[in-house]
Amino acid sequence: MVVVMQPQAGEEHVLEVESRLTAVGFRTHVIYGVKRTVIAAVGDRRVIESLDLEALPGVEKVVPIMKPFKLASREVKEESTVIKIKDVAIGAKELSIIAGPCAVESRDQLMEAAYAVRRAGAKLLRGGAFKPRTSPYSFQGMEEEGLKLLAEASELTGLVTVSEVVDEESLELAQKYIDILQIGTRNMQNFRLLKAAGKSGKPVLLKRGLSATVEEWLMAAEYIIAEGNPNVILCERGIRTYEPYTRNTLDLSAVPLVKGLSHLPIIVDPSHATGKRDLVLPMAMAAVAAGADGLLIEMHPDPARALCDGPQSLSPGEFARLMERLKPLAAAVNRSI
Amino acid sequence: MVVVMQPQAGEEHVLEVESRLTAVGFRTHVIYGVKRTVIAAVGDRRVIESLDLEALPGVEKVVPIMKPFKLASREVKEESTVIKIKDVAIGAKELSIIAGPCAVESRDQLMEAAYAVRRAGAKLLRGGAFKPRTSPYSFQGMEEEGLKLLAEASELTGLVTVSEVVDEESLELAQKYIDILQIGTRNMQNFRLLKAAGKSGKPVLLKRGLSATVEEWLMAAEYIIAEGNPNVILCERGIRTYEPYTRNTLDLSAVPLVKGLSHLPIIVDPSHATGKRDLVLPMAMAAVAAGADGLLIEMHPDPARALCDGPQSLSPGEFARLMERLKPLAAAVNRSI
Amino acid sequence: MVVVMQPQAGEEHVLEVESRLTAVGFRTHVIYGVKRTVIAAVGDRRVIESLDLEALPGVEKVVPIMKPFKLASREVKEESTVIKIKDVAIGAKELSIIAGPCAVESRDQLMEAAYAVRRAGAKLLRGGAFKPRTSPYSFQGMEEEGLKLLAEASELTGLVTVSEVVDEESLELAQKYIDILQIGTRNMQNFRLLKAAGKSGKPVLLKRGLSATVEEWLMAAEYIIAEGNPNVILCERGIRTYEPYTRNTLDLSAVPLVKGLSHLPIIVDPSHATGKRDLVLPMAMAAVAAGADGLLIEMHPDPARALCDGPQSLSPGEFARLMERLKPLAAAVNRSI
Amino acid sequence: MVVVMQPQAGEEHVLEVESRLTAVGFRTHVIYGVKRTVIAAVGDRRVIESLDLEALPGVEKVVPIMKPFKLASREVKEESTVIKIKDVAIGAKELSIIAGPCAVESRDQLMEAAYAVRRAGAKLLRGGAFKPRTSPYSFQGMEEEGLKLLAEASELTGLVTVSEVVDEESLELAQKYIDILQIGTRNMQNFRLLKAAGKSGKPVLLKRGLSATVEEWLMAAEYIIAEGNPNVILCERGIRTYEPYTRNTLDLSAVPLVKGLSHLPIIVDPSHATGKRDLVLPMAMAAVAAGADGLLIEMHPDPARALCDGPQSLSPGEFARLMERLKPLAAAVNRSI
Repeated sequence: MVVVMQPQAGEEHVLEVESRLTAVGFRTHVIYGVKRTVIAAVGDRRVIESLDLEALPGVEKVVPIMKPFKLASREVKEESTVIKIKDVAIGAKELSIIAGPCAVESRDQLMEAAYAVRRAGAKLLRGGAFKPRTSPYSFQGMEEEGLKLLAEASELTGLVTVSEVVDEESLELAQKYIDILQIGTRNMQNFRLLKAAGKSGKPVLLKRGLSATVEEWLMAAEYIIAEGNPNVILCERGIRTYEPYTRNTLDLSAVPLVKGLSHLPIIVDPSHATGKRDLVLPMAMAAVAAGADGLLIEMHPDPARALCDGPQSLSPGEFARLMERLKPLAAAVNRSI
Repeated sequence: MVVVMQPQAGEEHVLEVESRLTAVGFRTHVIYGVKRTVIAAVGDRRVIESLDLEALPGVEKVVPIMKPFKLASREVKEESTVIKIKDVAIGAKELSIIAGPCAVESRDQLMEAAYAVRRAGAKLLRGGAFKPRTSPYSFQGMEEEGLKLLAEASELTGLVTVSEVVDEESLELAQKYIDILQIGTRNMQNFRLLKAAGKSGKPVLLKRGLSATVEEWLMAAEYIIAEGNPNVILCERGIRTYEPYTRNTLDLSAVPLVKGLSHLPIIVDPSHATGKRDLVLPMAMAAVAAGADGLLIEMHPDPARALCDGPQSLSPGEFARLMERLKPLAAAVNRSI
Repeated sequence: MVVVMQPQAGEEHVLEVESRLTAVGFRTHVIYGVKRTVIAAVGDRRVIESLDLEALPGVEKVVPIMKPFKLASREVKEESTVIKIKDVAIGAKELSIIAGPCAVESRDQLMEAAYAVRRAGAKLLRGGAFKPRTSPYSFQGMEEEGLKLLAEASELTGLVTVSEVVDEESLELAQKYIDILQIGTRNMQNFRLLKAAGKSGKPVLLKRGLSATVEEWLMAAEYIIAEGNPNVILCERGIRTYEPYTRNTLDLSAVPLVKGLSHLPIIVDPSHATGKRDLVLPMAMAAVAAGADGLLIEMHPDPARALCDGPQSLSPGEFARLMERLKPLAAAVNRSI
Repeated sequence: MVVVMQPQAGEEHVLEVESRLTAVGFRTHVIYGVKRTVIAAVGDRRVIESLDLEALPGVEKVVPIMKPFKLASREVKEESTVIKIKDVAIGAKELSIIAGPCAVESRDQLMEAAYAVRRAGAKLLRGGAFKPRTSPYSFQGMEEEGLKLLAEASELTGLVTVSEVVDEESLELAQKYIDILQIGTRNMQNFRLLKAAGKSGKPVLLKRGLSATVEEWLMAAEYIIAEGNPNVILCERGIRTYEPYTRNTLDLSAVPLVKGLSHLPIIVDPSHATGKRDLVLPMAMAAVAAGADGLLIEMHPDPARALCDGPQSLSPGEFARLMERLKPLAAAVNRSI
């Protein structure tokens, strides 16, 4: 870490900073420049925030050098994490394709979706039972009833299930029925929920917050791992920008970036990112080419009658075609499907 | 609402859209343009989302005309809402100044802060007992112990108290000890929490999400009001942009904008928005000039030793000077303090 | 276009809007809603801006339906544009790979780069002679001398050349020596320059502005085409967001989006977008998978000694490997290289 | 400056970085951490960019400590700059209020505007003769004819004039007729234009780019000052964010921030920032309270018939009321009007 002092800072200010740092085990080196004094310090980045050195008189700014995350970083764990659930291995050579409706709406709808997912060759089924909706007047989900249907679909098809949890109560329920707990974009920094997910020990699909930096996202993963649960799957789903033509801006550079910074697997959700059915296929292709370990695709037996996210949902036929298109691409980047 | 059809859309597509709309009580008007057919529809905006018309074949886009919020809108309730707690009236002519430390750290720290707040002439005390922190390695708050200290400070000083709740459990606790429940920026779309806050009936200080639009923010307020709790205070606290010199970008235009769209009171938090002590005073002045009903200011007895947000916390002396500077300004814009 | 009137708007306001619209040849339809009156109008979108209806009393907002661009749109010209220069066809099945140094620094540096580009199998050479730099203290380019070296490199290697112009004077010069004129991100809305580029008749590589919407970008292309020059190549190079780990955020969804809205070819620049050498290859792969017609890659004979953009420049060896990796991928998406 | 080496960097890499730095007169200090080696260097920040150290093998990142701008910085020139033109002193205690139409449309329109500006007590007149417009189909300005009308208006009313220049040609013309040359948001990084404005010696009103950081903005000012012209007036006019309700987001925190970083005067344009007439007054008030040295206000004799920016233009009556409202506020913050 580097502490930059203000031009008018005096020797006593420099000494105060040094004493604070040495008190928590940092080694410090003072550098006297023409305009400014700079204090370089070597130690554990994780204690910096609790120091809050920028509050000290004479301090202009603090520049961290090390990354703030540790358990999620590749520096600490070099080999990539592979998460095994039933016959699925997320982070391995074979791409993990998760598909299904935005929301579980009925038994028929879900079963039809599940069989379509399996038929197309995917191995994971998604479906929302607890729906965070911007408007209180929108459909809010089937809750436990939806979870039970997912469990039934899994039994019938052998698919691994993914469903979103929105608080500790829904998490309690979901872990009884579901294989992978999804934490949605709006809850990426719901730290109580992250800790609960950490304690559950279940694999967690952690979506990137709508305007989260990659660093904040990995810090959220750190919360889960710090509770003893290393099974975190990151999911890039688009960030908020000024561009109005797409619902969000899919940040695919986050894929190789995260691969370099962290050992965790990362998948991509082109459906929520773009909000447009026509863009799902090209962005799914791009995600795989960028090195994603899998995809999260919205598919509905009848998109025109979907209770949510119909505009971006693929029909079973469109999803099957997507899977076909992915095969040669996956091979070209040395992945399988 | 206006539904824009794709150039290649056929008559059957237009009829399908019309039947969907008339089925939920909309009146429709079809307009045949040179390139496109457009369907204008008159009805309740709140049902649009559940229709998801953009999922229909032949539909290019749906352009809503009415605002999606109702209970929070000035169209529904013209007179401005004033929230009375003890001798405080938020939204009235007198500005509501809330001050105190980011986190409750100890009895001494809080009591010292409380007396400093009162001495300077402010009537509301803030202090965090449950701290959402980006890093799992940062101080997480005193929890119930902190709430008790806030209640004690209130009894000793007569100040109205504000503290953040992060989930239903902390909300349960807080409403026993605190006057105003704060919902923080990371939880603005934690819909479970919004509903619980609505049910509590307690006044709610709703901070704007880090990248929430004004519309999403008012929709979050709608969640609370829809549960029968009209006592919502909005708080602008800066939005995320690309500018690195300030922690966030304070969006003061949101103040007059919200005043026009909604009847709810709105206050401004210049401390979190800027993250820099030197910018707190000028931005506090600007907020009042823009028409804010109050301010949320971080003040710590000893900023250099604060466990969080020290860099942006004012000392008691700086806060007292801020209050002095605000008086003539408030008078100039026909407010009092 | 739809004109939404304010709730309190009177009949005279509605009539004023209608008369303005009919005066410029729009057909209007008035729709009386519960809360608001809405006027739907059918006509040429391009005249809307000059009307400025939102300035009229009683008007709340104007919602355009048609796109504001015409000559650049696929609605006007269905078949994709292919631009032929020597043996290169930009927008055809074969990918157009442009590579070379950020700046022309010397004869040796450029010739070495040119031969490396050709050896790797690319057909277009880039090199900056006029450098827009954020700091007045940075290297500003070799100007005409650099253009002459590019012309010489083209003669020696047969490569098609691309170089940036920054004003009418540099454009005058460049068109004497260069095959494709590049308009950089900072000049995307330098309308004088766009018109001059239109008049020149030369193929123009139009980079997306740092925070330009896709619509503004296509409007900039419209400026060039409107001067009678249809040879516009769009180049996505990343947009500005809050994410600090990458220099910009590469918006790959713009590729299929532009392909749907416009007939113009679009290429991608992963070097400037990411600012990180390690991310260039994966993002180049992703761009091709997303449907880009080509790539713009920074390559320098000795990146460690480059006068600009060294951190993101590939070495000749790295570039050759990139070309190798692209081949199977291109085949998988039915393109060639 | 601090150079952070990669974990795997070797001694030879460290030595290479040191030799590069010492070669340009930096003093270096190597700090060996647990995971990384860090090199702190003291010297002239302005040469860093030309070094491009991040391109060197073994270098992870370079963290600048000093600001990249020098001539524009308060560290170099402590006392605030005051720019005197006729009886106006921009940056002095008296606020500089600039008002007038977006575009000069006719002799009658401009003279009517000029008299209204003077009548209301403002001393500077704005009017666009060269209009950068997003659409090639929008009104593009009266060019030299408009400049002549501004000069005439100045003679008749004694007002100081401000008008935008868009390239060297328009700058040549404008300096014959106009007192202050405006460089618009789209040209903030048109470096050729900045240098020409620097050479002209005329006062320059430099608007912040649509997505420019404060640092980039001050670097643009540095371009002008570096040519020997210290008369730069900065103008905050809103930045691009995701919020759709306002045209841009007015970043008022930039006002005190710039006041701390630079000695240059700064004014605020609430008209372009908000794009909404109703928000101009509150944001103008807020700007003055935040410490702005002046305002740039769009005023049109007949906003409903303005050829551009009518929706945000005030009528002469509204402008007069704004001036009245500003008086007590200015007094409250120890400014005059």
